[in-house]
Amino acid sequence: MKALRFDGTLRVVGDAPLPRRSGEALVQVISAGICSTDLEIVKGYAGFHGTLGHEFVGRIAEAPDASLIGRRVVGEINAGCEKCDWCRAGDARHCPNRTVLGIKDRDGAFAEFLSLPVGNLIEIPSELTDEAAVFVEPMAAALHILEQVSIGPSSNVALIGDGKLAQLVALVAAQTGCRLLVIGKHKLKLDLATRGGGRSLVIDGASASPGEMANRVLSSERDRFDVVVEASGSATGLPLALSLVNPRGTIVLKSTHHRLTELQMSTVVVNEITIVGSRCGRFRPAIDLLASGCVDVAALVTAQFSLDEGMSAFEKAAESSSIKILLTVA
Amino acid sequence: MKALRFDGTLRVVGDAPLPRRSGEALVQVISAGICSTDLEIVKGYAGFHGTLGHEFVGRIAEAPDASLIGRRVVGEINAGCEKCDWCRAGDARHCPNRTVLGIKDRDGAFAEFLSLPVGNLIEIPSELTDEAAVFVEPMAAALHILEQVSIGPSSNVALIGDGKLAQLVALVAAQTGCRLLVIGKHKLKLDLATRGGGRSLVIDGASASPGEMANRVLSSERDRFDVVVEASGSATGLPLALSLVNPRGTIVLKSTHHRLTELQMSTVVVNEITIVGSRCGRFRPAIDLLASGCVDVAALVTAQFSLDEGMSAFEKAAESSSIKILLTVA
Repeated sequence: MKALRFDGTLRVVGDAPLPRRSGEALVQVISAGICSTDLEIVKGYAGFHGTLGHEFVGRIAEAPDASLIGRRVVGEINAGCEKCDWCRAGDARHCPNRTVLGIKDRDGAFAEFLSLPVGNLIEIPSELTDEAAVFVEPMAAALHILEQVSIGPSSNVALIGDGKLAQLVALVAAQTGCRLLVIGKHKLKLDLATRGGGRSLVIDGASASPGEMANRVLSSERDRFDVVVEASGSATGLPLALSLVNPRGTIVLKSTHHRLTELQMSTVVVNEITIVGSRCGRFRPAIDLLASGCVDVAALVTAQFSLDEGMSAFEKAAESSSIKILLTVA
Repeated sequence: MKALRFDGTLRVVGDAPLPRRSGEALVQVISAGICSTDLEIVKGYAGFHGTLGHEFVGRIAEAPDASLIGRRVVGEINAGCEKCDWCRAGDARHCPNRTVLGIKDRDGAFAEFLSLPVGNLIEIPSELTDEAAVFVEPMAAALHILEQVSIGPSSNVALIGDGKLAQLVALVAAQTGCRLLVIGKHKLKLDLATRGGGRSLVIDGASASPGEMANRVLSSERDRFDVVVEASGSATGLPLALSLVNPRGTIVLKSTHHRLTELQMSTVVVNEITIVGSRCGRFRPAIDLLASGCVDVAALVTAQFSLDEGMSAFEKAAESSSIKILLTVA
């Protein structure tokens, strides 16, 4: 089958074997999204070699239970060992022996077919388009913030970033009724991020230190922020967040990158800041939110490419003006 | 009056003016403790110049209400503006305009007299010795952890550090009934830290990376830790904590130092770690705990010096075998 693989070099291959795994379902991929984590993996993050991709919608082609064949599904990307305490508690996301679709020890979704345990697959309602269904995985990650940190109408929230994940976080944050400021580099992307609510501020970090950026933000703001979500994936994001957050406030770290971050941790101690790492979320609330029609993700699709055009799709996804790039497979 | 002051150079002076402040109480210092923060200030942390010292017991010498004169007191070290939202909520610890005894814009306790607002002073019960009363401030800081993070009998806790503050954190943690491992460099100090409960492990970080240290700890431990308290003040403390903590676990940062810390923040995201900065605590629970006799702090006093011997006291406090050094003033 065709697949977009990375083995130190990114390339489209035509002869990848079907990724059949014993006891699992084989899923024919309909469409898949390129995430910033995919771009980081190609730069060396996570040391993954194999077929990339973990945001997808597909149709079950083979399954131990034949009645499942033909169902349109999305899939939780973490597949656990089913034996450890995490798996037995029903949450494979932190299983120490987990494989992760397109990220860790498991070929991913930029291919004609992928394999996942049946328990990872969730059938999606017919009102959810294929295009919207690809957003279930990153939307679950955005919604996960609300499971970890209390955000409500009285919260003063800053979001750093206007890219792929930040766009979804902005939509989710706006739903809470909080006072929201989205900070990014691109006016057009910020306008898109705040169309569901909130204000925005263009800050070009290229020529400024995190402290200078913070001064610019705070010169136009009445108060520091109760919650700052760092979703820019930039090395300056966390130091900027630390300069913007209120004493006793919370920083949510959403972005993974493979660089070391230098931090003045005494600020964390003196101001009693809480830093919360946040990764994957539960799919069901994301499906419900997307199916409700309350948030519009179609506007986030910058372009669609075929699997054969995978290399061009990655180039486009890395452009600063791009938001979500989809690979349309079937 | 005599005072131990730092103005880029540490020295005992004999001619410091009495630190009278309008509307405040003048307190005659009986005894004061040297904290790691004092040692850091002398290295340049916090940019403070003036009389050092913030752990003390004393007797009220002058007060707007004369009936207070003669009372034996300890004192909350943060003095707020009384106008901001923090102060109006009754918590000056994060007032943006606060002064802090011996740390920020307010002369401290290594002197014959100090000044604090009457509202900062708390009379201590007669059963609390002067020696134990000096520990109220750092004990409040240790107890504050339990207000921020849930620790109970089912918690698996690691404490990094065996110094001044870590000793108190160990006593407090042992009171919760948690499974406790104290990690430090000094066998004798670790024995002292675990006399109230818990196990200990000697790790000399001088010749090992945080990853190597973590491997040594985990080779003797069944599990990673739900909570890791970093109270070593070492630059390797936080990276070590990050290697020891369970997914979805919590790191409590107790130590301030003035260096930058390099961290692999993607570990925080992928493992969804929470990092909680923790500084000053409330005095009342600390007074109650010390007065209860359930914890013994007398054993933590390495030596006592007079104010005239202040320089020798600081040298002794900086020795790795020392725990608490007291300056006996009156």
